[in-house]
Amino acid sequence: MSQRLNKLQTWMKENEIEVSFLTSSENVFYLSGYFTDPHERLLALVVFQDEEPFLVCPSMEVHDAKRSGWDHEIIGYSDIDHPWEMILASINKRINGVNKAAIEKEHMNVERYEQLSQLFPKASFVSAEEKLRLLRMIKDAKEIKIIEEACALADYAVEFGTSEIKEGKTELEVLNALEYALKQKGVTEMSFSTMVLTGANAASPHGNPGETKIKKGDLVLFDLGVVVDRYCSDITRTVAYGDINDKQKEIYDTVLKAQLAAIEASKPGTSAAEVDLTARRIISDAGYGEFFPHRLGHGLGISVHEYPSLTETNQLIIEEGMVYTIEPGIYVPGVAGVRIEDDVFITSDGAKIITKFPKELQIIK
Amino acid sequence: MSQRLNKLQTWMKENEIEVSFLTSSENVFYLSGYFTDPHERLLALVVFQDEEPFLVCPSMEVHDAKRSGWDHEIIGYSDIDHPWEMILASINKRINGVNKAAIEKEHMNVERYEQLSQLFPKASFVSAEEKLRLLRMIKDAKEIKIIEEACALADYAVEFGTSEIKEGKTELEVLNALEYALKQKGVTEMSFSTMVLTGANAASPHGNPGETKIKKGDLVLFDLGVVVDRYCSDITRTVAYGDINDKQKEIYDTVLKAQLAAIEASKPGTSAAEVDLTARRIISDAGYGEFFPHRLGHGLGISVHEYPSLTETNQLIIEEGMVYTIEPGIYVPGVAGVRIEDDVFITSDGAKIITKFPKELQIIK
Repeated sequence: MSQRLNKLQTWMKENEIEVSFLTSSENVFYLSGYFTDPHERLLALVVFQDEEPFLVCPSMEVHDAKRSGWDHEIIGYSDIDHPWEMILASINKRINGVNKAAIEKEHMNVERYEQLSQLFPKASFVSAEEKLRLLRMIKDAKEIKIIEEACALADYAVEFGTSEIKEGKTELEVLNALEYALKQKGVTEMSFSTMVLTGANAASPHGNPGETKIKKGDLVLFDLGVVVDRYCSDITRTVAYGDINDKQKEIYDTVLKAQLAAIEASKPGTSAAEVDLTARRIISDAGYGEFFPHRLGHGLGISVHEYPSLTETNQLIIEEGMVYTIEPGIYVPGVAGVRIEDDVFITSDGAKIITKFPKELQIIK
Repeated sequence: MSQRLNKLQTWMKENEIEVSFLTSSENVFYLSGYFTDPHERLLALVVFQDEEPFLVCPSMEVHDAKRSGWDHEIIGYSDIDHPWEMILASINKRINGVNKAAIEKEHMNVERYEQLSQLFPKASFVSAEEKLRLLRMIKDAKEIKIIEEACALADYAVEFGTSEIKEGKTELEVLNALEYALKQKGVTEMSFSTMVLTGANAASPHGNPGETKIKKGDLVLFDLGVVVDRYCSDITRTVAYGDINDKQKEIYDTVLKAQLAAIEASKPGTSAAEVDLTARRIISDAGYGEFFPHRLGHGLGISVHEYPSLTETNQLIIEEGMVYTIEPGIYVPGVAGVRIEDDVFITSDGAKIITKFPKELQIIK
């Protein structure tokens, strides 16, 4: 049994949970190594305290699931099978009745919940999500290596995008060019919708890339991420096209100072809140507090937003193995929008920066 | 109140449902005109038998929701508000207690269901999904017009992709080139992952576009769709690169004959099953029955798969206003994979074909 499954089983024993019935692609992948997007079909990983776990997937995916390394039972069902009956039979082979089951309450839909409730009429249902968030929060060496690859591609994307900036080009033209360049490198999925925003659009918290043309004196903001082997990267850089004014420079320098200080503060033993506040104080002291309306950052991994959440109130303690973003921003309508975001990995010595594109203000001529 | 809301309200009265609490982006859009992907945040449209409906969304989206034309109440909540309490207060202003509520059981998650169950401890919950599928199945003139635009762009994509076919190019190269061309035309979303498959890959039901190179004598299959104003198109064409053999030609001709016959059979009053079987019989009579392993087609609109489903057992009657795909295919491993798919719109006279790219076998030299 994998270490990850063992940790879940320990939690199940501590909480007297006889069965965990997990259904999100992300958590099934994390625990089984098999990723699939089953669309409307049922995917489930069923875990017990001691007995052998099993995977449930459409029969046409059984081969792929085996090939991915899952060497426990797999229940493949066709469109004319009754998967819930097959599941019940497999559970009954392992344990006698269920009093407490763990599910993903934010993922499982009501229809399936009603099916499961019928199978286990005596069971109470608790959520496994918080436990899985905490497990996934601490990355192992293999995960870090994949995220490093994803970050290297994100760096490349920003570099390529920056090289595409020219007078009169639109945000969408630059965006399409950089995504095309990534596809040429084999990238098939972005972590989220890529942002390329220029001038006033970058200064609006609701900016969306569009037909706005880049012009001299603009700050151009790139926010993007690349998925590699199911893991996400996430980078933001803001670059200047031609000369910018003193106010824009002051805003840039303030964001950078806050970002560097938060990286410095990111050490095992400090709290997420303290890391957030380290950046927030610098921005507030410079008079821009009201223009930094979001949290400092978020964990990332199989999901682009996961634990830890770096907010000014989260007392969670920073630990070795965490991977998160540090992304302060200042958005002054009509003046400038600047955000600088790195992905960092926490070691015993502090934060190691994984995204590498330069942060000194890049001035594109 | 819009006609769509009126129809839902009539159904609620017939079924003694005091409140419908709808949460999927697609159904909220269909009924309110406002589309948003709220990610993990709550979006809801709350509808009553007679009282004014209201929309629930994050406060930063209230402006967009109003601008989209929704002129009833909007409850915007911030990250520190308690939206469920706000919702309960707004419902209590309108009606006294809930005995029966309609939700989307395939969409709503267990966490929200528990919240809602607490708000209405006496309520039973039924699903609104089947009713909304039936409402959405019949398109109005405005919807048809948008789907026509989406189909015109799909035609363009196939035309462009076909022009990119050259000896030694990979499936992914052709795919990336055609998607890039669409982006230059302002397309920001595809209906699903575009398929460009050549030779043996097109003959496998599990083919995925990859590094396989196109070579003379291949049949190349394009399956793609474009989203315009939230509506999907979906087209498949199979073209020949250079000369193909007699067996490939026979398979192509059989699929085309089946496809044309199913279009001809698509008339108000016939059944979905009969349309499917019209194509299926032709393919079976030609000896390829076992190589046509999927349904004939599916409705499309805001979702790329919606009602009606054209299977050999669905007794649903074809009606004016339906829009669906007709996409028979034959996949003989090692020999050929051919699928031909049009989107059609049902009028009193029969099916009007919306996708226009030629279906006579195109031979690329």
